[in-house]
Amino acid sequence: MAVMIEPSEHPSASALADEGASRLARAREVTAAAGIDALLVSPGADLRYLTGYHALPLERLTCLALPADGDPFLVVPALEEPAARASAAGGLGVEILGWDETDDPYALVAGRLPGDAKRVAVDNHMWAEKLLAFRTAMPGTEQVLAGDVLRELRMRKSPAETEALRRAGAAIDRVHRRMGEWLRPGRTEQEVGRDIAEAILEAGHVTVDFVIVGSGPNSASPHHEVSERIIRTGDPVVVDIGGTTPEGYCSDSTRTYAVGEPPAEFRELYTVLERAQAAQTDAVRPGITAERLDAVGRDIISAAGYGESFIHRTGHGIGLSTHEEPYIVAGSNLPLEPGMSFSIEPGIYLAGRFGARIEDIVTVTEDGGERLNQTHRELTVLPAD
Amino acid sequence: MAVMIEPSEHPSASALADEGASRLARAREVTAAAGIDALLVSPGADLRYLTGYHALPLERLTCLALPADGDPFLVVPALEEPAARASAAGGLGVEILGWDETDDPYALVAGRLPGDAKRVAVDNHMWAEKLLAFRTAMPGTEQVLAGDVLRELRMRKSPAETEALRRAGAAIDRVHRRMGEWLRPGRTEQEVGRDIAEAILEAGHVTVDFVIVGSGPNSASPHHEVSERIIRTGDPVVVDIGGTTPEGYCSDSTRTYAVGEPPAEFRELYTVLERAQAAQTDAVRPGITAERLDAVGRDIISAAGYGESFIHRTGHGIGLSTHEEPYIVAGSNLPLEPGMSFSIEPGIYLAGRFGARIEDIVTVTEDGGERLNQTHRELTVLPAD
Repeated sequence: MAVMIEPSEHPSASALADEGASRLARAREVTAAAGIDALLVSPGADLRYLTGYHALPLERLTCLALPADGDPFLVVPALEEPAARASAAGGLGVEILGWDETDDPYALVAGRLPGDAKRVAVDNHMWAEKLLAFRTAMPGTEQVLAGDVLRELRMRKSPAETEALRRAGAAIDRVHRRMGEWLRPGRTEQEVGRDIAEAILEAGHVTVDFVIVGSGPNSASPHHEVSERIIRTGDPVVVDIGGTTPEGYCSDSTRTYAVGEPPAEFRELYTVLERAQAAQTDAVRPGITAERLDAVGRDIISAAGYGESFIHRTGHGIGLSTHEEPYIVAGSNLPLEPGMSFSIEPGIYLAGRFGARIEDIVTVTEDGGERLNQTHRELTVLPAD
Repeated sequence: MAVMIEPSEHPSASALADEGASRLARAREVTAAAGIDALLVSPGADLRYLTGYHALPLERLTCLALPADGDPFLVVPALEEPAARASAAGGLGVEILGWDETDDPYALVAGRLPGDAKRVAVDNHMWAEKLLAFRTAMPGTEQVLAGDVLRELRMRKSPAETEALRRAGAAIDRVHRRMGEWLRPGRTEQEVGRDIAEAILEAGHVTVDFVIVGSGPNSASPHHEVSERIIRTGDPVVVDIGGTTPEGYCSDSTRTYAVGEPPAEFRELYTVLERAQAAQTDAVRPGITAERLDAVGRDIISAAGYGESFIHRTGHGIGLSTHEEPYIVAGSNLPLEPGMSFSIEPGIYLAGRFGARIEDIVTVTEDGGERLNQTHRELTVLPAD
């Protein structure tokens, strides 16, 4: 869990809230079209997308049931009923049912669904204990993933969502612009990470979602977080950071810095990476497939002899979750469409030596792509003294 | 996700780390005894408990497989392999297998399990998309919950774990002692919440897990978080806060404050609550059942005429998760044992008017109980000017 401090009113909160009812209606349409009898959605990005309710992910069942043929209802623990009614969900006309500590909420949900529910879709992040409890409560019902239908809605951002992602991008850019205040030789990654975490909140996020400060050889570990390693002069440092805004939208941007002049070989590597990442962001347009966009950067990196060192996909969609559809990865022939927003974050990693990654969030426009991160992508060499 | 900034070395980190190997061995014993062929554990408290690896909960599969008859292995995405090897898991001699973006990690796990695996237990928080992917990869295998066996280990804290919980309790106590700096008439719950969140980090936590500031009528909403409501003179304010320490252990303590003199009826309600919560913490000892301990406070609150207003269980276990076994709730005849640690947090809520809750974490000792939160429990009336 992360602290959730949300204004009840926010500049574009209303614009986003207005979409609530239509999202539920569209979700029901795609659910019916997929031959699914009902969606069962527990706390998380899907629930927030469909109802605006940012519920605590706890052991007590909170679940939105959206029958393909019938009215949606929200089952919540009695102690959270006041919070649920005060949330955006309360304004959507969704029936809210509270349950007491000794009730069986799974039976409550099952009993209210259409009796002949043969296929029910659960949200992709529903906990195993809840999924198996629903199986017990609905033994004859096939369980599938709601993501297969909700992705059709969530991966195509509305103008209000794109605007929210722009605000998130601008917020994390403000943090990267201050990196020179914290990144210095003699400090540990952990010390720098704490400063960055505070700055992420100061910049307008309500939660700090991740802070990666990979210095020296740690820059070659893509999902390194922070350690007590002391940053040294000449170190490349990968800084990959993100948070969530009051509206619930996520930021995620990576820049690679050098603290003092880095090794010549690192500059060569970085130049190749910069060219690849720029080519990929330039290639974003409606119609290009995810795998083709991945290849645009991979080909450049491979041609320069670093093919084996680009060990992950190009990027991931982003919205109410940091990682969501569409994934920009080999094997995905998904054609990109206007409104889709995702990261372009190629990296080159030389194990035990150094690595680099450059990441921007990009949204597909009618005729191309728009970068939502605006800090420059050249190698920033910070003073070593 | 929450920012994870962990020292590689910490006072008691080694003491806890030393338990790693024995935890894996004991987990295998209880797994075999339960007639389960293997445990499959994805990122979360169970994985951290068993291996010390604090992995990112993402869409790519990271999974510890612990066969009842065979050696454990950890499957991780290639880009996280360096981080996994650098973690405590790397020191346990657990085989670590990396998989590439276009591999099928579920088939990788299934292929390495004993061929005749009939029953496999997944961790209770495994995401539905992963559980269903394992079902596809192991169609003939029954899936059950790992929590049913791991609870036997996790709910009985070792001395090193209890010491870690003491440190967490002392950290959150430091935040409550500063409440007078922030809680004043004219400020919003949200403003107070932001100050508290910063103080939770300053007090020695690495993440802020939740901040509830329920003022006036919001104090009657048990899981209210924060709103833009402006705190007024005479308001009761429920402050329920918690974070996670560098060792991974959670804090959770609630105190109810009054900003200026509260209504006389509120003082009456609070006096009953204080008596009930004290009686429950005094009643903690080996052998008493969870439901009996719940009743100790519920009887006092009911006798005073507030029975209908104590709308939730008495408490929850706490450790590497904020909420875990044992739950102190009606219907649980679990006898408490030394080492079990949980919250005692009765509350009385008068909808639309006001409410109060007092919460301490208590650990069962050889002959009684020990409160891990030490701030006083009398009503704190803060100055209104």
